[in-house]
Amino acid sequence: MLQPRIDPVRFWSTVETSATIGVIPATDKHDPGLGRLTLTDDDKAVRDRFVAWCHEAGLTVRVDRMGSIVGRRAGQDETLPPVLLGSHLDTQQHGGRFDGVIGVLGALEVVRALNGAGIVTRRPIEIVTWTNEEGGRFAPPMVASGVYAGAYDLAWAHGIRDDDGFRLGDELARIGYADDAPCPPPTYPAAYLELHIEQGPVLDRENIQVGVVTHGMTVHGFRIAFYGETAHAGTRPMALRRNALVAAARLAVAIDDLGQDLAASGGMATVSRIVASPNKSGIVSDRAELTADIRHSDAATADATADRLLAAAQEAADTARCRWEVQDRWHWGGDIFDPRLVNVIRDTAEALGYTHRDLPSQAGHDAYFLARVCPTAMIFTPGRDGITHHPDEFTTLAETVPGVEVLLHATLAVANA
Amino acid sequence: MLQPRIDPVRFWSTVETSATIGVIPATDKHDPGLGRLTLTDDDKAVRDRFVAWCHEAGLTVRVDRMGSIVGRRAGQDETLPPVLLGSHLDTQQHGGRFDGVIGVLGALEVVRALNGAGIVTRRPIEIVTWTNEEGGRFAPPMVASGVYAGAYDLAWAHGIRDDDGFRLGDELARIGYADDAPCPPPTYPAAYLELHIEQGPVLDRENIQVGVVTHGMTVHGFRIAFYGETAHAGTRPMALRRNALVAAARLAVAIDDLGQDLAASGGMATVSRIVASPNKSGIVSDRAELTADIRHSDAATADATADRLLAAAQEAADTARCRWEVQDRWHWGGDIFDPRLVNVIRDTAEALGYTHRDLPSQAGHDAYFLARVCPTAMIFTPGRDGITHHPDEFTTLAETVPGVEVLLHATLAVANA
Repeated sequence: MLQPRIDPVRFWSTVETSATIGVIPATDKHDPGLGRLTLTDDDKAVRDRFVAWCHEAGLTVRVDRMGSIVGRRAGQDETLPPVLLGSHLDTQQHGGRFDGVIGVLGALEVVRALNGAGIVTRRPIEIVTWTNEEGGRFAPPMVASGVYAGAYDLAWAHGIRDDDGFRLGDELARIGYADDAPCPPPTYPAAYLELHIEQGPVLDRENIQVGVVTHGMTVHGFRIAFYGETAHAGTRPMALRRNALVAAARLAVAIDDLGQDLAASGGMATVSRIVASPNKSGIVSDRAELTADIRHSDAATADATADRLLAAAQEAADTARCRWEVQDRWHWGGDIFDPRLVNVIRDTAEALGYTHRDLPSQAGHDAYFLARVCPTAMIFTPGRDGITHHPDEFTTLAETVPGVEVLLHATLAVANA
Repeated sequence: MLQPRIDPVRFWSTVETSATIGVIPATDKHDPGLGRLTLTDDDKAVRDRFVAWCHEAGLTVRVDRMGSIVGRRAGQDETLPPVLLGSHLDTQQHGGRFDGVIGVLGALEVVRALNGAGIVTRRPIEIVTWTNEEGGRFAPPMVASGVYAGAYDLAWAHGIRDDDGFRLGDELARIGYADDAPCPPPTYPAAYLELHIEQGPVLDRENIQVGVVTHGMTVHGFRIAFYGETAHAGTRPMALRRNALVAAARLAVAIDDLGQDLAASGGMATVSRIVASPNKSGIVSDRAELTADIRHSDAATADATADRLLAAAQEAADTARCRWEVQDRWHWGGDIFDPRLVNVIRDTAEALGYTHRDLPSQAGHDAYFLARVCPTAMIFTPGRDGITHHPDEFTTLAETVPGVEVLLHATLAVANA
């Protein structure tokens, strides 16, 4: 049996190929980046490419009811739960080339390395790309792994609509990825490992090769709607107005102020989306929606800030004489990853001679939902200045290889245990 | 020669017919009203209907370069400038059935009444429906009358884009109303008279039949853009963020606060539109636009408040670390209508035995631009509770007939002068 090794050139060529799919044409931006929003034609193109790579690697491919694609490599004992590796191939609008991608294609490289060395592990190995990790088109994010882990209802997730009114379930069918592998699955994996670019500046700033992720920030996400009344901008007295747009703007400012309060302790509050209707010059809007989230490494602080956000929504609605409601709410993080599996990651990095450190994840990841149903751990690789969800997201092959090597050897350890 | 009289049944049937064009299908609203946004298929339908009515009334029809439709009735002396009557047939989204409509169809009824009585006036009479009075789809409002009066540039107006990126000039061509009558025209009319529903509560509350409009509120309108930087909502520290959406929200709140300050003296400030980009869950927006206006019957107060709005934009941009610019700015009103012509309206109402009062207009009207180039006056008819730009906008035939009668007899007086 050969010592399995990843092939850097082969691995990087898959990353570079994926970066050619979904490129936004340059207009007003110098580098507009990728726009591979989930379940678009570009998402279909990268999925088709991934399925082809899986077949070339001898994997058996299935697609579950949320459109997540799983490639399976048989183990010596096919009755054992598999080890699952993966991440996502969708991007934000004007997103980067590495977020999610290196986790999926790193997992593919692990399988290819095992193939090259002629190794058959005791447990099967499965690699996955989750549908709609980003949530940029359909909120909330990580919805497929959420359904997989039983946190969200399948039919509800199929019914989520984007801003143009398209249903997630219909878009799955439209791009040919509505299939019937059960989601949630009948049994959960023996372990889940996710490799990901850090999306924060720690590893880059400290010049450390491998991040051992111990836990995630607590996140509270909200989609809140305000309801007022249309009126003529020139004739309705101010005192009688019920401008839903103004209610949403008042809440947006309050949320940004909450974020400034959290900044000293490393937390954040983000207003990411506002949509008003009719939203036309000269008329008061009778409806507005706001999407926002709060993140903090301390769960109690995050929870308390979420309560303050809801109080601010009530106050904004009162000031603008509008009704309001929480249309959608999501929550993740805070979960401690499996200590035994985190130790495996750390020990593997150490044994391979890489510099490493423990750190929390600031961003959301599918691993948070997986942590609810099976032992889970994450590996971070450095990203330049921590820039992400932006065309300037950047890393190098040399900075990424150590993480893929750790993924390979940690997988071997767990799949043979 | 017969005494000319308007035919209430004939007149009201045109109003009722127009109210069947552009009805929004009922969904979440009990009465969704009309959605005859300018240069849509529904706008084309009502234009086609108006052109047919003009032909039936024996008028010569021309369409100018801004798509405004003019029907001409010959006078005894065809070398004299005509008397122009009109208003607009476009509506806001979820708009009402009378705003603009009774001015155009009232003008049509005047012509029909003159036809019925066999009267040929000394001057020609022209009736007009102006393109895009509302500005709901293409800001600013009253753009065609603005070009007509030389306040806006024709090519600039053709280049205005709606939120889907469609150009006003292209949409004119698409619906078949790109024609070549000059705009601005070679000569201006002898007078312009516009009949309109009040859009305020004064006549209804005081049970007065005819409003004699003396002047308009001063209006300052703005489209302001903020430019920031996209970033991951979970990883970019608050202190480094440049969230354009937050900058726009801060300005929206400041503008609403300005409106509360103006309320005591009857003024108003309205944020009517906000658009952010990418505007997706989980990402900081790098671009946001706000459309807003300030209105006050005292021009100095309106001007000073416009300055405060611009200062607030600078402050909002600074707080959110964004760049900003005024993309578009418009200004109208304050103009005193022609005193001689206002007297004609008042005297005609008095002679016909109608109750009447002088009052200012709070809303914007094409008449404001016409007042810059020819003697202009407006006649208001009552509207229930002053509700407008809303499906509940309501008036009755009995409340509207007096205004149409005044329009008829004032037109006769001016056209024979």
